Amino acid sequence: MARRHLHRMRIAFSDCDPAQIVFFANYFKWFDTAFREFCTACGVPSWRETTATRGIIGAPLVDAQAKFRNSATYGEDIEIESWVEDWGGKSFVMRHVARRGDTVLCEGREVRVFAVQDPEDPLRIKAIPIPEDLRAACS
Amino acid sequence: MARRHLHRMRIAFSDCDPAQIVFFANYFKWFDTAFREFCTACGVPSWRETTATRGIIGAPLVDAQAKFRNSATYGEDIEIESWVEDWGGKSFVMRHVARRGDTVLCEGREVRVFAVQDPEDPLRIKAIPIPEDLRAACS
Amino acid sequence: MARRHLHRMRIAFSDCDPAQIVFFANYFKWFDTAFREFCTACGVPSWRETTATRGIIGAPLVDAQAKFRNSATYGEDIEIESWVEDWGGKSFVMRHVARRGDTVLCEGREVRVFAVQDPEDPLRIKAIPIPEDLRAACS
Amino acid sequence: MARRHLHRMRIAFSDCDPAQIVFFANYFKWFDTAFREFCTACGVPSWRETTATRGIIGAPLVDAQAKFRNSATYGEDIEIESWVEDWGGKSFVMRHVARRGDTVLCEGREVRVFAVQDPEDPLRIKAIPIPEDLRAACS
Repeated sequence: MARRHLHRMRIAFSDCDPAQIVFFANYFKWFDTAFREFCTACGVPSWRETTATRGIIGAPLVDAQAKFRNSATYGEDIEIESWVEDWGGKSFVMRHVARRGDTVLCEGREVRVFAVQDPEDPLRIKAIPIPEDLRAACS
Repeated sequence: MARRHLHRMRIAFSDCDPAQIVFFANYFKWFDTAFREFCTACGVPSWRETTATRGIIGAPLVDAQAKFRNSATYGEDIEIESWVEDWGGKSFVMRHVARRGDTVLCEGREVRVFAVQDPEDPLRIKAIPIPEDLRAACS
Repeated sequence: MARRHLHRMRIAFSDCDPAQIVFFANYFKWFDTAFREFCTACGVPSWRETTATRGIIGAPLVDAQAKFRNSATYGEDIEIESWVEDWGGKSFVMRHVARRGDTVLCEGREVRVFAVQDPEDPLRIKAIPIPEDLRAACS
Repeated sequence: MARRHLHRMRIAFSDCDPAQIVFFANYFKWFDTAFREFCTACGVPSWRETTATRGIIGAPLVDAQAKFRNSATYGEDIEIESWVEDWGGKSFVMRHVARRGDTVLCEGREVRVFAVQDPEDPLRIKAIPIPEDLRAACS
């Protein structure tokens, strides 16, 4: 069974919009943070360190999706559960579920790649085959 | 053919992350703004006004997806093209494409509903059947 | 001596800018959250509740200042210490210090008022004299 | 008389908080963008370019302050006027005023330095004496 990680947080006033609920795009930001916390829990060094040691600048998204099930508002405590659902050759699928108690708020699905700076254009980035050690650590 | 709207903007330093590129979740924020600009161009009053006149607090998302095709960075000018791809009974599908010149940066797909405050719980919201006049305006 | 509150958090990748450090405006956002956590620790009900019971929509800022002492980056754990430095008739001064271990990162000073919706213009807000019970709770 | 620059923008839904008004910290973000637009208008190359050519990674803040005069909400068009108020040896003072028509919304004051990567710690940054050519360009 896949490794799972729980990331806990409290919704802030500034996370909410004039409809009084979490501005939806924040879930994507939180899933990204939850992904990094998942990596850390799995023993993956910081991207700063992997950039220095192996040129891997991180695991950027090629596709992100979220389904919004229930709304949430500021002052509420939520948790995000994260795991890898599938490993491909160059990409992998992360899943995230944000919950307030037993209530599912948002379900996320991310397709990510491990990336290096594009040698032909330092302003762009480039996917590499999934490194075996990172796959093993996160499985 | 569906009505289309172009939203132009310049990427700011603070829109970018330590990888020097746009932090992906900003595309979702920008698509949301582009959707509202699309509505305004179609003659839909502000949500503030529809809240006051009809109880419609806005058109929140039930599903959002983006495919990230090429990275972009600060100082670059981009445009977002937006249109309604499909109308359902209670939901509709918005499409957005962000481009820098001819380069597609990000393609977005949003499933939205028109919502009112939940009469049974003022902290939550509730979808309503798509109002005919709003559908006509945005088609 | 004034009541003090400690708010702990970890800096996220998306909190940082292309210079690899915390984007400065995030400190203002975090101080705002720290202020609300301070209120909660002092027994002040949520603004949602005070809006319903007393019309007080919150304690918006009339002035905010921060001095940036040392930079910080993602993955670092920081804490924010918050207290009221001074009470005026209609406004009060909050102080915040963000630290990473013993290193001061940022010092904040906020002038806040308690506000109600402006009876003459529901889109605007208006300061009220500081309620005695809220002052007592936060001192 | 100092060079001045006008930056125009429309307030988005996601810029506003549950009090229905601009979340205050966004003014700091917008002033930062307005500062960069000011630099561009003055002929200062992108920080990406100055990093490559001269090691100058940008002009980070050592102090930022804002006074909030009137609230604003989404859908409103505003403009930000920016200029250098004072030049010191290692720092300079930027001023910004955000207006909606004739109404002043927010007045900002930033103390900035030109910075290079700290040679003793690549994760930190360091101020340099103000380069004469940048001072001349922005005056």
